[in-house]
Amino acid sequence: MPDINTLDSVRAMHWHGDGLELLDQRKLPGEVSYLRLSSADEVACAIHDMVVRGAPAIGITAAYGVALAGRETYAKAGEHWREAVKPALEQLARARPTAVNLCWALSRMCALFADIHGDPTPVLLAEAAAIHHEDLTANRRMGEMGASLIGPGARVLTHCNTGSLATGGFGTALGVIRAAFAKDVLLQVYATETRPWLQGARLTAWELAQDGIPLSLLADGAAAYLMKRKAVDWVIVGADRIAANGDVANKIGTYALALAARAHGVRLMVVAPSSTVDMDTPSAEAIHIEQRPASEILGFNGIPVAAAGADAWNPVFDVTPSQLIDVIVTERGLVHQPGAEGMARLMSRA
Amino acid sequence: MPDINTLDSVRAMHWHGDGLELLDQRKLPGEVSYLRLSSADEVACAIHDMVVRGAPAIGITAAYGVALAGRETYAKAGEHWREAVKPALEQLARARPTAVNLCWALSRMCALFADIHGDPTPVLLAEAAAIHHEDLTANRRMGEMGASLIGPGARVLTHCNTGSLATGGFGTALGVIRAAFAKDVLLQVYATETRPWLQGARLTAWELAQDGIPLSLLADGAAAYLMKRKAVDWVIVGADRIAANGDVANKIGTYALALAARAHGVRLMVVAPSSTVDMDTPSAEAIHIEQRPASEILGFNGIPVAAAGADAWNPVFDVTPSQLIDVIVTERGLVHQPGAEGMARLMSRA
Repeated sequence: MPDINTLDSVRAMHWHGDGLELLDQRKLPGEVSYLRLSSADEVACAIHDMVVRGAPAIGITAAYGVALAGRETYAKAGEHWREAVKPALEQLARARPTAVNLCWALSRMCALFADIHGDPTPVLLAEAAAIHHEDLTANRRMGEMGASLIGPGARVLTHCNTGSLATGGFGTALGVIRAAFAKDVLLQVYATETRPWLQGARLTAWELAQDGIPLSLLADGAAAYLMKRKAVDWVIVGADRIAANGDVANKIGTYALALAARAHGVRLMVVAPSSTVDMDTPSAEAIHIEQRPASEILGFNGIPVAAAGADAWNPVFDVTPSQLIDVIVTERGLVHQPGAEGMARLMSRA
Repeated sequence: MPDINTLDSVRAMHWHGDGLELLDQRKLPGEVSYLRLSSADEVACAIHDMVVRGAPAIGITAAYGVALAGRETYAKAGEHWREAVKPALEQLARARPTAVNLCWALSRMCALFADIHGDPTPVLLAEAAAIHHEDLTANRRMGEMGASLIGPGARVLTHCNTGSLATGGFGTALGVIRAAFAKDVLLQVYATETRPWLQGARLTAWELAQDGIPLSLLADGAAAYLMKRKAVDWVIVGADRIAANGDVANKIGTYALALAARAHGVRLMVVAPSSTVDMDTPSAEAIHIEQRPASEILGFNGIPVAAAGADAWNPVFDVTPSQLIDVIVTERGLVHQPGAEGMARLMSRA
């Protein structure tokens, strides 16, 4: 049986002496290189430019960004750092609009401000590290809980990248797949390539290769046909924001998978830490869906592919109504057939 | 109002003196270049290697291939050409497995053999040209019939490439879109990029740009979300084979679009000449679905993308049950809510 302790060797970010190192995910799998960031501005730009992506990873990175912002502004403004830090916080908050983990992490960091005396750096850095550590712990817990739902001989399909690269480590949906692999219940892992950014082909395939977990990639449009051929038992995805009624915003293409899964009796599992749940958003309709440049569809790696003059519609996320979801897995527990009541009960737990 | 006579200036193939010229679709839109083929072997290889693709275009190209095969074997074997030509016919038949138009064209060409005296070249060439011309005529007729179903202000979504490049000219699904554009009833044309070969981004966008028809590309996985946003009235696609019960084999991703269309009350129109209907195939389950190399998924436009060691599942087509189709448009007429009875009635017409 595979040893779970040998899995998951990659980290998307780590604090390194006096700066934050980010694995540059835009260059994977061809090049493994790290960017060293020493200011909040650099962190905000790295989030915006997708050096790091994945809702939990964005949250953790932003938390380290707040620590850098506190250090910078304390050096310049001394005791007035709380006022001086505001533009940096706003810049971080604007870096990506859809993942609620970013706002959640900023709020948690800011909640400490009032009680800090003197240089805020040590306190903020400790809190960012705590957020990072808690995310990793939550992922391992979710991995176990999610894997316990999966029977032997399961064929699972995942979308985008939800692994160590998208989180503080281990992963959400990919954490469940790692844990299921360690339990030896997986017969087959399928991963969509996930256009336009190809997170499935570039990142998920790379992570699973590190762990020796075999996978088969497929075009996003082929998943429904794979389900029609009765080759999938579970679709397992992450989330960028979960509304109070259990609706889920996640990578574009998730909704299409959810429709196909329901049409074929394939179960849909959404795996996300409770920091992804936004009880202030009543339903997915209220979630701001980020649009990214048409160039991501019209070309690849800077090389034009589409005919000149073509336009593109490029939403990064879509929304899946809770009715299509069989179970939401968080570190606080499971919500089967999610709805407003189940989500409220989940979030009222410690 | 746009003039329909100014639309459709591209041809995928034409006979040129003593050989067949094929527009090399693998190089579009970056390079417009033609391959000149003077043997049946070259034609079979060009079909296999996707220099030309699209079910009707494959059929027409194969018909010209038979004329070349007849010329070659008559030069070598004289009156024994009918026997000598068989290996070339078998090679052409094996070039691509799913599009029935290929077999249909070969059968139609072979049906002439018995009555040919002397050099078969003129008769076979005339028949290939007739097949080509009839396809173009059928497409213009289907374009009119299909466009007549579309109300003003329509938002249509198409998949893959079904235009002049995929046919003898004008196109099937794209012919309906051309005709609807000429009638000025289109508000918006959406085209999926169509992984892995990107026929939507590379070919459909290129053809529509020639005609001045604006379009918006999107990732294949985004189409369901576009429908959820109530932005699509019709999904219009071609077909590679239509079974006797109205089931349709078409480009991978069609089935996912059909499921999403039905879930949102979006209508699905399949446009194909009657040469695409295979009354010998009772349902789509009996259709051989071509698998192509994993490298098409593991790379993007020829550039490796996926992590080393990843495998891929790469079916070129999928099957859509007739229950999900609102109307099949052929040059013989329309079949609403297609099923075995409607298809039989259609095919019994002259």
